[in-house]
Amino acid sequence: MKVAVTGAAGQINYSLLFRIASGQLFGPDVKVHLSLLEINIEAAVKAMEGVAMELEDCAFATLDGYSLHTDPVKCFADADCVFLVGAKPRAKGMERKDLLKANAAIFSAQGNALAESASPDVKVLVVGNPANTNCLIAQRNAASLNPANFTAMTRLDQNRAITQIAQHTNKHASEIRNVIIWGNHSATQFPDIAHASVADALAADVVDDAWYRNEMIGKVQKRGAAIIESRGFSSAASAASAAIDHMRDWFNGTIDGQWVSMGVVSSGEYEITSGLVYSYPCTCNKGEWNIVSGLDIAPFAREMMKNTEDELIEERNDIATLLPI
Amino acid sequence: MKVAVTGAAGQINYSLLFRIASGQLFGPDVKVHLSLLEINIEAAVKAMEGVAMELEDCAFATLDGYSLHTDPVKCFADADCVFLVGAKPRAKGMERKDLLKANAAIFSAQGNALAESASPDVKVLVVGNPANTNCLIAQRNAASLNPANFTAMTRLDQNRAITQIAQHTNKHASEIRNVIIWGNHSATQFPDIAHASVADALAADVVDDAWYRNEMIGKVQKRGAAIIESRGFSSAASAASAAIDHMRDWFNGTIDGQWVSMGVVSSGEYEITSGLVYSYPCTCNKGEWNIVSGLDIAPFAREMMKNTEDELIEERNDIATLLPI
Repeated sequence: MKVAVTGAAGQINYSLLFRIASGQLFGPDVKVHLSLLEINIEAAVKAMEGVAMELEDCAFATLDGYSLHTDPVKCFADADCVFLVGAKPRAKGMERKDLLKANAAIFSAQGNALAESASPDVKVLVVGNPANTNCLIAQRNAASLNPANFTAMTRLDQNRAITQIAQHTNKHASEIRNVIIWGNHSATQFPDIAHASVADALAADVVDDAWYRNEMIGKVQKRGAAIIESRGFSSAASAASAAIDHMRDWFNGTIDGQWVSMGVVSSGEYEITSGLVYSYPCTCNKGEWNIVSGLDIAPFAREMMKNTEDELIEERNDIATLLPI
Repeated sequence: MKVAVTGAAGQINYSLLFRIASGQLFGPDVKVHLSLLEINIEAAVKAMEGVAMELEDCAFATLDGYSLHTDPVKCFADADCVFLVGAKPRAKGMERKDLLKANAAIFSAQGNALAESASPDVKVLVVGNPANTNCLIAQRNAASLNPANFTAMTRLDQNRAITQIAQHTNKHASEIRNVIIWGNHSATQFPDIAHASVADALAADVVDDAWYRNEMIGKVQKRGAAIIESRGFSSAASAASAAIDHMRDWFNGTIDGQWVSMGVVSSGEYEITSGLVYSYPCTCNKGEWNIVSGLDIAPFAREMMKNTEDELIEERNDIATLLPI
């Protein structure tokens, strides 16, 4: 399997690459080739070379080799699986619109490159923020590829929500199922527990509703800031872990009766504007995702889903002139 | 399994903890409890809390929970397995002797704490440098524990040597076997390929001897510095990976006919001074290591083994007054 990543010398990849190379994405029997991309600046390339040296030094049985690139077309050539991790971070005093535009330039180029050189079945996961809109830009610039090949990561939010519920109910994280993250990977996201279960119970029966509405939702929405406040750096290892979870489930399939949250191109499901990259509950089977259908949406949930949709529409409007017609 | 680590907020642990928690040390069916230690300084404790938050946010099925400590006695209580990762780094202008003494203070306290509270079968791996002598200090200060419970890491050097041979012979790392690292985890270490194999061949038959003596040995000895030069930071992910390899093989056993390098307390094997923590080729079985015996040692190897032994004697002399009698 050929796995390409962007932002190879960054902190998320410093966790992600070693977990992939050690077999945690495709299992102990599949050898992977890692194709790494960095921007064409000496310091970045040198740092990427250093990461590659450390990958060598692990002598992983499951790492077939690697290649280093500054050209996305070469990096993505025949890639089966691509993690778009590198993104421009918000600089001091930068307007949100400027951030969106700076990233639009990167992700439109990468979308074009994916269309040009990746495998037609390539699975793309956008991790770099603003992930949903970056994903939209890449997807729209890769018109020859199936839109279903493009996804944005909200699995970290899902894992964070699961952990909050596990702590609140004094259960293990593995006993919490079918939590949903709707919408944008941002502070407007909606962590929904209306359809979730905790061990053998419905979440609604064991989770205090006031705690859920007044504390948990905000805690999940602002967890990234809390990590920065505590560690002094943004989430990297947990983001990498969620990226592995997302991609592994997409390839291998989800467990019967369980779903996972993925930002995918909407076809209008649950009354969301078609064409947005919106996080939905999905099941995966044989490398294809499907949005879970038929869930009842209560008025509170509808309002929250709409809020985060509105933000995504606004983001899209901000970069609309950069989207191909 | 209860796994304790020191230096929890450091870079090596930022890789190590997530790989342990995701099941890469004890497999997918064993739940681990992580017991983390940091120094009692607000910034360090806060950073450790941030790492713990990210561990939570991974929702790992194999993580049973964690506890945070600044007291080593509490951190090591009933630990089955301890990674001593935290160590004082060399500050600018610091003499080597001062570095040894600064670390001696840390590792003597941790040796005492291990004797006081850890499981009698605890397996200790010292990663923090100078690893061999730090290990010696911890072991000597834990007189009630079996000296065989204490090991120092040279697995990273072994992995680095394997990679050099793999690249030189155009083989995969998994085809290189029984490379030995003798002595100290330092620039005097001796990477020995006299007993190694490359696929079905003896290494001696397929590796150019001049390249081995004039290039490879130096490259392995100085690989740490090369990584710092390239990445701008010292090896962390590859050190964490080697620590997993070391501990996993110690617990699970090595493959028949294959050995691994471990710094262990010498009983005088291969004419090395008894009592030093010296890296030997070892096999592991049911949680016990045994030094591979009966290997022929050529004059060149003997000289190299003596050099690195001399350095370890010197290090021991530098901190001799701090060792219990």
